[in-house]
Amino acid sequence: MRRTLRKLSSSRSAATSGACGYLRPACRRSTSVDTRVSAAPAAAYSELTELDVQHFTTVVGGSNVITDEAALEHYNTDWMRKYRGKSRLALRPGSTTEVSRILAHCNERRLPIVPQGGNTGLVGGSVPVDDEVVLSLGRMNRVLAMDEHAGNLVCEAGCVLETLQEYVWKRGYTMPLDLGAKGSCQIGGNIATNAGGLRFLRYGSLHGSVLGLEVVLADGTVLDNLTALRKDNTGYDLKQLFIGSEGTLGVVTGCAIALPRAPTSVQLAFLGLSSFDAVLACFGAAKRDLGEVLSAVEFLDAESYELVNRHLGGRPPPLAPGSRHYMLLELSGSRAEHDQAKLSGFLEHVMAEGLVADGTIAQDQAQSQGIWRVREGITSALGKEGAVYKYDVSIPLAELYTLCEVMRARLEAHGALVTGFGHLGDGNLHLNIYTPGRFNKDPAVLAAIEPFVYEWIAERRGSISAEHGLGVMKPAFLRMSKSESMIELMRGIKGLLDPKGILNPYKVLPPLSHS
Amino acid sequence: MRRTLRKLSSSRSAATSGACGYLRPACRRSTSVDTRVSAAPAAAYSELTELDVQHFTTVVGGSNVITDEAALEHYNTDWMRKYRGKSRLALRPGSTTEVSRILAHCNERRLPIVPQGGNTGLVGGSVPVDDEVVLSLGRMNRVLAMDEHAGNLVCEAGCVLETLQEYVWKRGYTMPLDLGAKGSCQIGGNIATNAGGLRFLRYGSLHGSVLGLEVVLADGTVLDNLTALRKDNTGYDLKQLFIGSEGTLGVVTGCAIALPRAPTSVQLAFLGLSSFDAVLACFGAAKRDLGEVLSAVEFLDAESYELVNRHLGGRPPPLAPGSRHYMLLELSGSRAEHDQAKLSGFLEHVMAEGLVADGTIAQDQAQSQGIWRVREGITSALGKEGAVYKYDVSIPLAELYTLCEVMRARLEAHGALVTGFGHLGDGNLHLNIYTPGRFNKDPAVLAAIEPFVYEWIAERRGSISAEHGLGVMKPAFLRMSKSESMIELMRGIKGLLDPKGILNPYKVLPPLSHS
Repeated sequence: MRRTLRKLSSSRSAATSGACGYLRPACRRSTSVDTRVSAAPAAAYSELTELDVQHFTTVVGGSNVITDEAALEHYNTDWMRKYRGKSRLALRPGSTTEVSRILAHCNERRLPIVPQGGNTGLVGGSVPVDDEVVLSLGRMNRVLAMDEHAGNLVCEAGCVLETLQEYVWKRGYTMPLDLGAKGSCQIGGNIATNAGGLRFLRYGSLHGSVLGLEVVLADGTVLDNLTALRKDNTGYDLKQLFIGSEGTLGVVTGCAIALPRAPTSVQLAFLGLSSFDAVLACFGAAKRDLGEVLSAVEFLDAESYELVNRHLGGRPPPLAPGSRHYMLLELSGSRAEHDQAKLSGFLEHVMAEGLVADGTIAQDQAQSQGIWRVREGITSALGKEGAVYKYDVSIPLAELYTLCEVMRARLEAHGALVTGFGHLGDGNLHLNIYTPGRFNKDPAVLAAIEPFVYEWIAERRGSISAEHGLGVMKPAFLRMSKSESMIELMRGIKGLLDPKGILNPYKVLPPLSHS
Repeated sequence: MRRTLRKLSSSRSAATSGACGYLRPACRRSTSVDTRVSAAPAAAYSELTELDVQHFTTVVGGSNVITDEAALEHYNTDWMRKYRGKSRLALRPGSTTEVSRILAHCNERRLPIVPQGGNTGLVGGSVPVDDEVVLSLGRMNRVLAMDEHAGNLVCEAGCVLETLQEYVWKRGYTMPLDLGAKGSCQIGGNIATNAGGLRFLRYGSLHGSVLGLEVVLADGTVLDNLTALRKDNTGYDLKQLFIGSEGTLGVVTGCAIALPRAPTSVQLAFLGLSSFDAVLACFGAAKRDLGEVLSAVEFLDAESYELVNRHLGGRPPPLAPGSRHYMLLELSGSRAEHDQAKLSGFLEHVMAEGLVADGTIAQDQAQSQGIWRVREGITSALGKEGAVYKYDVSIPLAELYTLCEVMRARLEAHGALVTGFGHLGDGNLHLNIYTPGRFNKDPAVLAAIEPFVYEWIAERRGSISAEHGLGVMKPAFLRMSKSESMIELMRGIKGLLDPKGILNPYKVLPPLSHS
């Protein structure tokens, strides 16, 4: 059932149409914008017309033009069903040329557009806020080249991360990033949001791993920087601009990524500790004793552990409860006997120093999965207990857990509980506050959290979004992490690259305060 | 002996001076510009006056204002004595505030300025082309903080790399980069030029290692992003713009850097191989067998090896000559017995596979130094043989050495010899062509090399400057590595950040073709 778009309105005849027959841009209401966004972009957008749809059909073919309301639901809604747009059109291009032609048209017509990868984000960055056109990259999912000498992969943006992982693993390599959403997130979206995840400690940021990008700019210009060179110091490293820009500066259509060799040995330990000071000391010992094979250092507090254990479906927890904190340490290396010897030496040290009270080492794949299930099951377990207020923050390590304690004291009177877990090795805390048995968000709880939590982080020069980005959820709080002069420069760059503001509007940058 | 600057010219009274008494900007000749630069920037610069010098004296103090001609020689000339400017003023600020005040003044007055770190570059990026003011960062050499839990260092831009290496080594860490110039290069200059060097294979690019930057923009605005967070996805990652921009977009005044743990075991092997195919196969085996402890993979051809052995001052070479190529492999790890076992296993494999004909393992520090002396001595040995034409390029690995063979055939008739060596692990070839016994550059030799070498690299989508940057030497060849649309965007960013073009003019970007 294809819904007919609004026919050209009567204003068309009144407008001085150009040769191409399009309406002149006209101001439009944006009453449906998320209430957190207090102002529309400076640009005035055009309304989508039947002529636009006809044009896009000539570009991508009828089967890749989605206007059916039911089919659009998938593109209009994020996976948490927290953000919902009202787009009347989604396009599924099959090539960079098609993306270029779509953007050139949108730019000329001032039609706003949202690039969408796997739509697995947590801050509403990949769904429309109003009725932006959705540009879905999923059809662009080809591996273009792999250099097994140098260790790099060149592929299109719509490749699913897990598919790439399987592809390179068969050839002796691994992807430099891994995250819970790997089965549906796309590499283009990973790059556009500068995804962090579980291997960040070992393989570092995408700013280091991405060797080249192909990006389509707002006006349709193809920025062809899809080289796989490790070193290239010729001019400004433009690709860096697009890594983490959440689709507001250009659309990533292809990438070249450096690949680490696949590990042939993986060891996993799960430890119980009596204090956060012990957690920090144990992390230091791990860096000293495990050195180059350390590949993940995660932590969770007793509150997280007890919560997740209630939702393990009868499976026994890896350790009996009773510790104040828990740590997961993963080692990835090329010789199992070496890695096992390093792990044994480390455990002897931390036991002798009294840092670790309890612990277990996974003996097989099933035990490994059981331990990872605990770490990765917290988010889902929280959702079953009540409404959840999620914060993904970076804080200097010494004060990482202090924030949980401060929030716990602050929220006690509201009947809200606080859990803390995250990527300790990266200084990245996932602070989750929830109201047991109460599934609707409570304005009083929210008021007790925000803006206090952001201010507390800002005072310590932390980040209010370590890896989730800003999307439509957090632009108003950007000032808590970045100075006015930095935000002004960001605006300058946005203006340079997307002067009409068509790319992923209402996202990342806060509305101008004087508007 | 302080040279008196030209007094305010008679044009001053004719000019409509502002309240501050400065001359209006006036067009100025740029006859002394390097002949490779065919056009002056669009901006018209002012002449430096005595009033400017008086102002700068109030900012940095008289002892940090250098106008003496002899003392200026140091700031006007690069270490190779290949590039020479005619600056009449060098300033040595002691703080970010002073840098900010200097730039604000230069911007208002349209006085061009060259940031200068250790002045160890190879492409003339850190010396004036004409009479730009030199901004020397060497006094800003304080360590500001080190977080031993998280493993990061915050310091001023003028810190010498080797000094920082010693500082962090004492605390159990290592700097993520190392290069021959470490005794004099400064970390701010390393970042501004995106230095690569010897540890790139292991610790990756500065785009991944630099956690935060403090940068002073052309108008004096301080962009304060000096945080040491591993993860921060709040807005565009502006610091990336300045890494590798060679001082043309802003002046780096401070940085935060992620530190790897110091290795406690270092192993070094030096191998002889019969073909470049064997070199590539051996590199693959090294990645497989040595995995996470591999920290450097360098190569040199027989021509480089025989050349450098002539200049070892009577020391015996690590291996008898006779192989076609040589490889240096370094392992850095946390357990010597593990690393030695990995190295033994690797050597057994490559010997059994017939890849390696000859080889030696360093047994102590002296033998290690002897091997590194060979690799690092090539540049100096070349200079003793004749005039050298140096190219620092990235090429996909499979064709890395083909370029040397092509150039060798091409230059035979000119009596020029070709050597190839470099960072194999990074796909980075140092192609050096020299004329034995002839110490003056020969236009016929140069014409046989350029632009052919750049075109050959461009056809393979390589980089014409892997790690040395563009400086004043290579802007005209930027088009060989980057498309017109990328260069146009680079110009847009330059215009946004430095609209008057005062920062390091004539560098990086090519002159506009229509000028």
